[in-house]
Amino acid sequence: MGVGGISYFCAMANNEDQFKKVVSHAKEYGYIFASSEIYDGLSAVYDYAQNGVELKKNIREYWWRSMVYMHQNIVGIDSAILMHPTTWKASGHVDAFNDPLIDNKDSKKRYRADVLIEDHAEKIYQKAQKEIEKARKRFGESFDEEQYCATNERVINYLAENRRILERMGKSLGNEDLADVKALIDELEIADPETGSKNWTEVRQFNLMFGTKLGASAESAMDLYLRPETAQGIFVNFLNVQKSGRMKIPFGIAQTGKAFRNEIVARQFIFRMREFEQMEMQFFVRPGDEMKWYEYWKKTRLNWHLSLGMGAENYRFHDHEKLAHYANAAADIEFNFPFGFKELEGIHSRTDFDLKAHEKFSGKKLQFFDPELNESYVPYVVETSIGLDRMFLAVLSNSLQDETLEDGSIRTVLKLPAILAPVKAAVLPLIKRDGLPEIAQKIIDDLQWDYNVIYDEKDAVGRRYRRQDAVGTPFCITVDHRTIEDNTVTIRYRDSMEQERIKIEEISEKMKETISFKNWIS
Amino acid sequence: MGVGGISYFCAMANNEDQFKKVVSHAKEYGYIFASSEIYDGLSAVYDYAQNGVELKKNIREYWWRSMVYMHQNIVGIDSAILMHPTTWKASGHVDAFNDPLIDNKDSKKRYRADVLIEDHAEKIYQKAQKEIEKARKRFGESFDEEQYCATNERVINYLAENRRILERMGKSLGNEDLADVKALIDELEIADPETGSKNWTEVRQFNLMFGTKLGASAESAMDLYLRPETAQGIFVNFLNVQKSGRMKIPFGIAQTGKAFRNEIVARQFIFRMREFEQMEMQFFVRPGDEMKWYEYWKKTRLNWHLSLGMGAENYRFHDHEKLAHYANAAADIEFNFPFGFKELEGIHSRTDFDLKAHEKFSGKKLQFFDPELNESYVPYVVETSIGLDRMFLAVLSNSLQDETLEDGSIRTVLKLPAILAPVKAAVLPLIKRDGLPEIAQKIIDDLQWDYNVIYDEKDAVGRRYRRQDAVGTPFCITVDHRTIEDNTVTIRYRDSMEQERIKIEEISEKMKETISFKNWIS
Repeated sequence: MGVGGISYFCAMANNEDQFKKVVSHAKEYGYIFASSEIYDGLSAVYDYAQNGVELKKNIREYWWRSMVYMHQNIVGIDSAILMHPTTWKASGHVDAFNDPLIDNKDSKKRYRADVLIEDHAEKIYQKAQKEIEKARKRFGESFDEEQYCATNERVINYLAENRRILERMGKSLGNEDLADVKALIDELEIADPETGSKNWTEVRQFNLMFGTKLGASAESAMDLYLRPETAQGIFVNFLNVQKSGRMKIPFGIAQTGKAFRNEIVARQFIFRMREFEQMEMQFFVRPGDEMKWYEYWKKTRLNWHLSLGMGAENYRFHDHEKLAHYANAAADIEFNFPFGFKELEGIHSRTDFDLKAHEKFSGKKLQFFDPELNESYVPYVVETSIGLDRMFLAVLSNSLQDETLEDGSIRTVLKLPAILAPVKAAVLPLIKRDGLPEIAQKIIDDLQWDYNVIYDEKDAVGRRYRRQDAVGTPFCITVDHRTIEDNTVTIRYRDSMEQERIKIEEISEKMKETISFKNWIS
Repeated sequence: MGVGGISYFCAMANNEDQFKKVVSHAKEYGYIFASSEIYDGLSAVYDYAQNGVELKKNIREYWWRSMVYMHQNIVGIDSAILMHPTTWKASGHVDAFNDPLIDNKDSKKRYRADVLIEDHAEKIYQKAQKEIEKARKRFGESFDEEQYCATNERVINYLAENRRILERMGKSLGNEDLADVKALIDELEIADPETGSKNWTEVRQFNLMFGTKLGASAESAMDLYLRPETAQGIFVNFLNVQKSGRMKIPFGIAQTGKAFRNEIVARQFIFRMREFEQMEMQFFVRPGDEMKWYEYWKKTRLNWHLSLGMGAENYRFHDHEKLAHYANAAADIEFNFPFGFKELEGIHSRTDFDLKAHEKFSGKKLQFFDPELNESYVPYVVETSIGLDRMFLAVLSNSLQDETLEDGSIRTVLKLPAILAPVKAAVLPLIKRDGLPEIAQKIIDDLQWDYNVIYDEKDAVGRRYRRQDAVGTPFCITVDHRTIEDNTVTIRYRDSMEQERIKIEEISEKMKETISFKNWIS
């Protein structure tokens, strides 16, 4: 917990420009606004705007249908954000869900010690990158990056130093040796990024859970936490669901919902937020079967991602070498974000750690009687856990493209997977008179039973097409004078920009082909 | 804010038995569990179980589609639970979102003063009810309740006393005259319900917002609140949405999401919870047009409720006489819950109170330039606000019925509106062999692309039907030996219990007729 994935790879160049474009596009086209922006925002909290809310809903629904409706042995729940506080004692969050913090004595600023060190290591890594880029320019086409990284002494040293720092930090944090984390900061002569002072306090642990109080009177008030993960809501309900749903092992419980972490350094737009949404599934299995299911879910979840067609080359597995205290195997599905490959989803074999802990703290048995084995046991758990906001960012950043057209002009287009697109079609009367708006409105009246569609009559139709391209609308339906004669419209496809003449009655079927869940997931 | 609706009506008898049945049915059939039940629960917080989560999702989606997709001038957003704290200063929640509390000096127990008084008034009201019930038994068929209430002196006195107490309390609270609330408690000789002591402290205001802290260092920590309503997330985003969405007045912004209130006395199952979900829409209109739109939304929202077919007699309007500080007109749509008619949805004409307040506190202009009037103004707002959990309780309690069948046996059936039912169909092989399970599975494979369907092979088929009746599944599809011969199955309808023989290929179409959104909402 707490420490994010660290990339040792040599080849990944960051793409800051693309990332900036994504952030500004998200605001301009109604995907994401800073929270409470009129009050100058709330750090690391964001609001989903009119198109963002639809994209988020569509991702959530795509996951839910794939996990719950397509698996007869998976059901959903929706547990509350507020839970009995003992839950977080049992899960280990009260004692161990911490970030290592350090204060600068001169500036009084507070930092995450691990982030200071990571940033320092990153600078060294960037030096290697610069060497590589220089060499790439020098050698042109014939440049072999892998060979260069393996033979150039400066690059080797930079990368080795980067690795040494990160490994030492990982080890110290793993051993809770905070004194060594401090020693490392001193040795590397890391300074306060804002003031340059090197006058640091010791490193201390800070719990990441948001606290609140239930009840009014001082004596009776109960200290509560905003849940830092949705998983525990599944574990505490395990037996209630199993019994009332007559579930048999193996079975899963899925949940989507908000979680909260009081991150000190929350960065990278919606990648790491203080308030975020998870889509988690806990799969309960026979002890001993967990590795089989762990492999099954790794494969199944990767296939789910691939079904969206965002490019197999943009995903990779990262198997954890160092495991959390509750896991006996863990892997991330990493996605190629504009800032490099980062965790998008985690698949964890969590053993019986959580259920056993809740047994201990609640005094209740959390066992399953297995009729085939004729015995009771505490099931093992394989978890799949994906950040909905990260998934949103993956989809948005992967989809945003600037295309140079034949006439040399640039088209900005959001090539969202059509099934996830917020607006499925825009209906456009060519001009604002001659009865064309009325026909367009009738088409909307018909389509809106099944799809989120919009009407747009402002500006020249070419400009409206571009506006819909930027929003990511897969279809534009244009009503023109021929429509009055023969009941046909133009349907324009976002990605190819091709146009086709079809009958009004065919629109819905045409859209369905492209948008139906079955055509995507299977 | 704070004080709930008080019913002055004479005729409504509570139905406690029905309510108890709903609560226990909700647990037994996987609709609602107490939160963190293994830790003995968290007061006034509940978890939605495997069927509950689907019913809740379906209600939310029914609302969203009706409001957002069916209105071309309404868009959605999803703003964060954590907002800049000045938001709640501007909205008035920091200063005025309070409950009046009183402590008993002997028992050290704390109560809501208004609830103590309401409970006292309720006892007097119940005395009138007892008289009425006695008279009803005495006079039988010929009993005219209205006339009796108007003429029997004891009943008149009880009802007048009940009304006098509630009106005085309402007035004192309205004037923030807490001394008079205390005086009323003393005059009525209200005692601590647990100990009988009448030794009370003064009445004080207690803010209902949950607080938390953002950030780690003592100096930089920011006091935040968990939002007590979703509406403010819409107001602070008004201009961002209007501009990026190119919206023209009149237009609406819709949102569903969690809100939190630290209720001291939270009662009646999921009717009043500390963590709950709202479905709100703020409709921005020209100043002066608000009463027209207020009437429009009252009508439109009532029609939405009626579309679900839960009985027009179970809804009524309650126009507010006393208005909140931000409103110039307000009405509730009340529903006939097992504990009487209570607020299900509120329609409020909120004037420009909120936007003006945010202008003042943020220093930003929140105006719309109206091209038709050629002037800028702060729009007026008409709000529709419905509690998703209350809607859930309305649907669940209205649907749960015990039917006496011809053979004298009792059938428990959850007659949920089919479009809201968690499980749309159960597919049942008559017996567990002869290839019937495999055919059933193939039917599932086909249906699950479009519907949440389940497979059940355990117990005699009659018992399985009853189980599905209790869950509220509209269709049971039974595969028997004839299926092997002619590819037909039995489809059984939950409400009528009628069965019909249809072809396997016809199942999906048959279900679609009953479940399609268009057939419900239009």
